[in-house]
Amino acid sequence: MKVGKQTIVFKNRPKVIGYYSMAGEKEVYGNFKDYFDYILKDDKFGEKTFEKAERKIIEHTIFKAIDKSNLSVPDIDLLISGDLLNQIISSSFSAKHFDSPFIGLYGACSTMAESLAIGACLVDSKNFNNVACCTGSHFSTVERQYRFPLELGNQRPPVSQWTVTGAGCSILSLKGKGNVITAATFGKVTDYDVKDVNNMGAAMAPAAMRTIISHFEDMQTTPDDYDLILTGDLGKLGSEIFMDLMEHNGYKLGNNYNDCGQMMYNINQKSYQGGSGTGCSAIVLNSYVYKKLSEGKFKKVLFAATGALLSPLSSQQGESIPSICHVVVIERGEE
Amino acid sequence: MKVGKQTIVFKNRPKVIGYYSMAGEKEVYGNFKDYFDYILKDDKFGEKTFEKAERKIIEHTIFKAIDKSNLSVPDIDLLISGDLLNQIISSSFSAKHFDSPFIGLYGACSTMAESLAIGACLVDSKNFNNVACCTGSHFSTVERQYRFPLELGNQRPPVSQWTVTGAGCSILSLKGKGNVITAATFGKVTDYDVKDVNNMGAAMAPAAMRTIISHFEDMQTTPDDYDLILTGDLGKLGSEIFMDLMEHNGYKLGNNYNDCGQMMYNINQKSYQGGSGTGCSAIVLNSYVYKKLSEGKFKKVLFAATGALLSPLSSQQGESIPSICHVVVIERGEE
Repeated sequence: MKVGKQTIVFKNRPKVIGYYSMAGEKEVYGNFKDYFDYILKDDKFGEKTFEKAERKIIEHTIFKAIDKSNLSVPDIDLLISGDLLNQIISSSFSAKHFDSPFIGLYGACSTMAESLAIGACLVDSKNFNNVACCTGSHFSTVERQYRFPLELGNQRPPVSQWTVTGAGCSILSLKGKGNVITAATFGKVTDYDVKDVNNMGAAMAPAAMRTIISHFEDMQTTPDDYDLILTGDLGKLGSEIFMDLMEHNGYKLGNNYNDCGQMMYNINQKSYQGGSGTGCSAIVLNSYVYKKLSEGKFKKVLFAATGALLSPLSSQQGESIPSICHVVVIERGEE
Repeated sequence: MKVGKQTIVFKNRPKVIGYYSMAGEKEVYGNFKDYFDYILKDDKFGEKTFEKAERKIIEHTIFKAIDKSNLSVPDIDLLISGDLLNQIISSSFSAKHFDSPFIGLYGACSTMAESLAIGACLVDSKNFNNVACCTGSHFSTVERQYRFPLELGNQRPPVSQWTVTGAGCSILSLKGKGNVITAATFGKVTDYDVKDVNNMGAAMAPAAMRTIISHFEDMQTTPDDYDLILTGDLGKLGSEIFMDLMEHNGYKLGNNYNDCGQMMYNINQKSYQGGSGTGCSAIVLNSYVYKKLSEGKFKKVLFAATGALLSPLSSQQGESIPSICHVVVIERGEE
C-alpha cells in the first residue's frame, strides 16, 4: 500500500526467514568480527581470478542463506541480485546455478536495499513465495575496474573509502519466522554536482538526505522513532555531510544514527573514510543488524543503502556523480 | 497472482496508457519506418559524445511517453530503466531529470520485458500509480564498449548482429485506456556453453525456449493461442535455432512467430543476422506491436525479450555466455 508520495507499507509483513554473510579477511579485523557467518581465508576463494572469486562468494552466500532458511534451492521462486562489475557478471553468472527466475539490478552500493525493497513488494503482493535478495563486492575486482591496476600500488587520497570484500543474502517470505520488512521508500536520483570520484560520501549524502526525509514525511515519523538509522556507505566524511544536511532541514540525528562504511573498519586499518562497495551494507545488514534485532537490542531499524551511479567513462567525459538511496524499514519479529 | 511455477497473472489489468519510440537513421531504412515516433537525423543528437547522445535519447523518450499519456512528470511515481553501458549510466543519468523514484536494472537486451514485468507487478498490486518502463541503446556506444574502437572499421563476421540506435518507453497505469499487460513470466539464467561473442543469437535461443515453454506450461496455452510470438533479438540464425529447439520440445511455431532482430533491417542493409541491443525490442514493441494491437491486427502478443549476460571481461576470462529471457503478454485493450 502506498503511503504519502513514495513509501510502500507492507500489509502482509514479509519476513526475513534466513540470511547469510560472508566477509574477507580485512573486514574481519574490523568491528563486526563476531557477526559474520563465514570468513574468507584466501581472497581468491580457490579461484584463478578475483572476478571468479567474487562470483563464487555471491553464489555460496545465496546457497547458505537458502539453507539457513530451511528451504531448498527449488523453493526459491525469485532471485534478485546486482553487483558493481560491468554487466553485473557476478550476479548473472551466479544465477545460472539456481533454478529460479532472476531479476538483475544495478544500483551500485544501494543494491542491498533496492533488492530488498523490490523483493518485499513482490512477496507482499503474493506474486512470489520465497525471494532471495543478494549483493556482494570484492576489493580487488572493483579497484581494478574503477580505479587502477592492483599492481600499481597507488596512493589513496584521505577522502577515499575501501571496497569491502563480502556478500550478504536475505530470504524473504510470508511463511516462517524472522524480522519483518514493514516499509520501503524507493529513492530518486540526486545530483549535487560533486565530481571528485575519490569522495563518494560527499556525492551520496544528498541522496540519503532526500530519501530519508521523504520517508519521514510519508510515514509521519521522526528520527526518534527508530532504534537505528543506518546509511549504506557514506563513510566518515560523508556521514558528517549527511548529518549537516539533515540538521539544515530540521532533523537533528542523535546516537541512533550510524553508517555501515564508517562502522566497518577499526581506526588502525588505514581505510581512511571507511568501507564502501555493494558488499559493505550487505554484510552489516545480514549479520549485525538482523542479529541485534533478534536479540532485542533494536526494535525498528531504518536501513538506507546509498549508491554512486557513476562509471569511469562518465567521469572521463566530465560528468558529475548522480547518486541514489533506497530505504527499507526492518522491525523485530518473533523468532 | 502466481500461476504455475513462474508466471504472474495480473488481476487488475495494468494498461499501457502511453508509449514512445525513437530510432536512428539506419533503423528507419529498415522495416518499421512508418511506426516510429521520432527519427534521429544526427546520431550524436546534438551532443559531444555518443554516450551523452544515448542518454539524451532515453531522456527524451521518457518525457515524450509521459506526454503522450496525458500525464505530467510529477505524475510518474516510479521510473524503471536499464541499458547496456557499464553501470547503466544512460538510465541513471537520465533519471536525475525526473522527479520519480528510480529502479535501475541490468538485463542486457531483455531489459524492455524485465522493466515491463516488474512495472506491471508494482502497478497491479497498487504500490505505484503510473510507472515508466524504458530502455535504449546506441550502436556507437555499444560497439566501442563491447567490441572495437569505431575508427578501426573492423570486419564483422556473418553471424553477427547490429546494435540498434533507439529507445522505447511504456507508461503503465490502472487508470486510463490502452493495451493490457495480462501476464508475465520472469526467466531463469540459462547457459548452453556458447562462447562465441559474435553469435549472441545462439547463446540466447535456449533461454528464450526455456521461459516461453514455462509460460505455455503455466498458462496451459499453446503457440496457437497468440497472434504474435515475438522474441527479443535472436536475429535470423538465433531464431532458426530457437524454432528448432522449440520443435524438439514439441512446440512447432508457425507464421505467428517472429523476432525483433530479424525484422529490424531490410536485406540490403548488410546487418547480417539483424538487429540487437536493448533498443531493438524496445522500439519494435513501442511502435509496431502496440499500434497493431490498437488497430486490431493482433489481439494477444507474447513479447519475449532476450538478453546475453556476458561482459568483455567474462569472455576474456574464458567464460561462456549465460542468457535470459523474460516474457510479457500484451492483449488488445479498449482505446
